[in-house]
Amino acid sequence: MGAPVATLDVRDLLGEVDEGRARLIAAAIATFAAKGFHGTSTRDIAAAAGMSPAAVYVHHRSKEALLHVISKAGHERILRLIEECLDSSPDPVTRLGAVMEAYAAAHARGHTVARIVNYDLRALSGEHYAEIAEIRRATTSRVRSLVAEGARAGVFRVADVDITTLALLSLGIDVARWYRDGGGWTPELVGARYRELALRMVGATCADRRDG
Amino acid sequence: MGAPVATLDVRDLLGEVDEGRARLIAAAIATFAAKGFHGTSTRDIAAAAGMSPAAVYVHHRSKEALLHVISKAGHERILRLIEECLDSSPDPVTRLGAVMEAYAAAHARGHTVARIVNYDLRALSGEHYAEIAEIRRATTSRVRSLVAEGARAGVFRVADVDITTLALLSLGIDVARWYRDGGGWTPELVGARYRELALRMVGATCADRRDG
Repeated sequence: MGAPVATLDVRDLLGEVDEGRARLIAAAIATFAAKGFHGTSTRDIAAAAGMSPAAVYVHHRSKEALLHVISKAGHERILRLIEECLDSSPDPVTRLGAVMEAYAAAHARGHTVARIVNYDLRALSGEHYAEIAEIRRATTSRVRSLVAEGARAGVFRVADVDITTLALLSLGIDVARWYRDGGGWTPELVGARYRELALRMVGATCADRRDG
Repeated sequence: MGAPVATLDVRDLLGEVDEGRARLIAAAIATFAAKGFHGTSTRDIAAAAGMSPAAVYVHHRSKEALLHVISKAGHERILRLIEECLDSSPDPVTRLGAVMEAYAAAHARGHTVARIVNYDLRALSGEHYAEIAEIRRATTSRVRSLVAEGARAGVFRVADVDITTLALLSLGIDVARWYRDGGGWTPELVGARYRELALRMVGATCADRRDG
């Protein structure tokens, strides 16, 4: 079951939206999380938002349109987060550490939205899927460039840049599957531990030790 | 969309079952993979199996009962696989390498079943969920003991045994989300690369280099 989603979280995700729209998106997130996209009807979302199905249609033509809005905002937020971390330092080790820490912590903190956004991708229309796939490729590309840069500079020791990049992103995404609020580990702790693991995966820790 | 599931794969998962039951389980796997558990009706499964809904009820009372059979077999197979790897060597480095290689490759090879088994857990009844959670705890416990043993023996350098264990299993499970048949990487390649990454995550590679 998904955690309750406040309209506050929706504003954090989407920026300034009117109260009705925020309530509707919050209801869609909670319903998709609880029943899965395919198990959710527009009527379920309307009921969770305390609206009539007709009122839902004023805002969005279908539940797929709601999934698209949530998915786009979720993916753009992650891409922005990574880009901010890439500006944080000239050093690839520090930058990759910052990227992984922020990425893992974001998937813990926003696990309900992250699950919908990552596991219901195939429910998007062809056009919407293509748009989201483009944002995902940009995210992968940023991380891949950083891994390749560190390898070229000799501060990372990487056997396979593509699989290593995929594994780093995969490890972060899967936090959304297992993370539970109140389960004993804060998003900050998960982020800090995942920073260390990521630096080991790219061989940065070994390089550090050897050179130190 | 799920990959087509042959009755052959079902026999690999469940052992000897009669033709009708194998067809039904294969249909359930394909339908859950394509439409999600919540989006699937018993009627959908019957149609995919070429049976009447009444014939489905002869075998299983509900779609939850089908999910339970698939989930139990999938989880038991992974636990057996890990236990076999644990018998493979007295050396924790070799053993953890073997566990991760087999675990990651199995999640690539059996990605359709692994997705259902890992992402639709909450759709199980309370009693069935408890049974599966017990198998999951056994799997985690085997890997955790191995990580702790390597750390005690000084061949692993681990900051946090629990989070490291979780991250190893998480990395393996998420292979089921991203892996595509015919996507260029074989399950064997994924297994081999994930063996290296896992040994780095536990600090075994660093220890090797330093001691070597």
